[in-house]
Amino acid sequence: MLDFLGLGKPTQIAVITDNIEVSAANYAALFGLPVPEISTGGTYDVTKCEYMGAPAPDCGAKLAFFNLEGIQFELIEPYGADSTWKDFLTETGGGLHHMAFQVPDMDAAIAKCEAAGMKLTQKGLYADASGIYAYLDARDSLKIFVELLHSF
Amino acid sequence: MLDFLGLGKPTQIAVITDNIEVSAANYAALFGLPVPEISTGGTYDVTKCEYMGAPAPDCGAKLAFFNLEGIQFELIEPYGADSTWKDFLTETGGGLHHMAFQVPDMDAAIAKCEAAGMKLTQKGLYADASGIYAYLDARDSLKIFVELLHSF
Repeated sequence: MLDFLGLGKPTQIAVITDNIEVSAANYAALFGLPVPEISTGGTYDVTKCEYMGAPAPDCGAKLAFFNLEGIQFELIEPYGADSTWKDFLTETGGGLHHMAFQVPDMDAAIAKCEAAGMKLTQKGLYADASGIYAYLDARDSLKIFVELLHSF
Repeated sequence: MLDFLGLGKPTQIAVITDNIEVSAANYAALFGLPVPEISTGGTYDVTKCEYMGAPAPDCGAKLAFFNLEGIQFELIEPYGADSTWKDFLTETGGGLHHMAFQVPDMDAAIAKCEAAGMKLTQKGLYADASGIYAYLDARDSLKIFVELLHSF
């Protein structure tokens, strides 16, 4: 059983897809919203991405965001080398992947999640270096991944 | 590509699990909220559940809900005979399953979703007969299931 984490309300849910252009158009049709701009997760010189504890200079993803009144919905298409996104796409063919939570102290939040049995699979800076993210595999306890977000 | 559906903001996201008591306790710890009451989806005499177009008197699920300021998070543990929930649990081992949308006209919304290529897998009344739900398999276009909800 998971110990108390108390991360509050998720601020984001995310789907991993093999074709973000098609998925962005399809979700725009579903919600009745404009097709969002597609950006990238940034380059290694900025993001310093780590995958399974090691530097991952070639891991990347295309991203698109819908703001749904109180919760953000994200689409992710992985590219490049191994990443926690690509692992999920390979294993599942794509689908709902994670809930994200804003945390005040990233190291403390990662330590709490690891102590609760979650496995840190990837972390790095945002594409504009304005914050840091970490993915934790919580499929044993929660059937999903948890993403932690901290803006500087 | 999906034609325009314009369902607006999802009001619910849901995870399917094989043990709702454990999952409810774990998500309560994750969010920092009280463990919710566990209810059931109701009995066939009320719900008139249909699975893959046929009456499904033995399909059922235990349910638990967290209200997360603007979006509801649901846990579902299927039991009994075949259901769209049990199919998903068997195929995936559990995980994030659907986004739900409130619709003003259920038959019109189902027809629009079917015309867009989604497959109706299950529908029925709420446990208290106060509304109707329908699940549509949208994994081809959206990588998820869509649930339509209409309160009487």
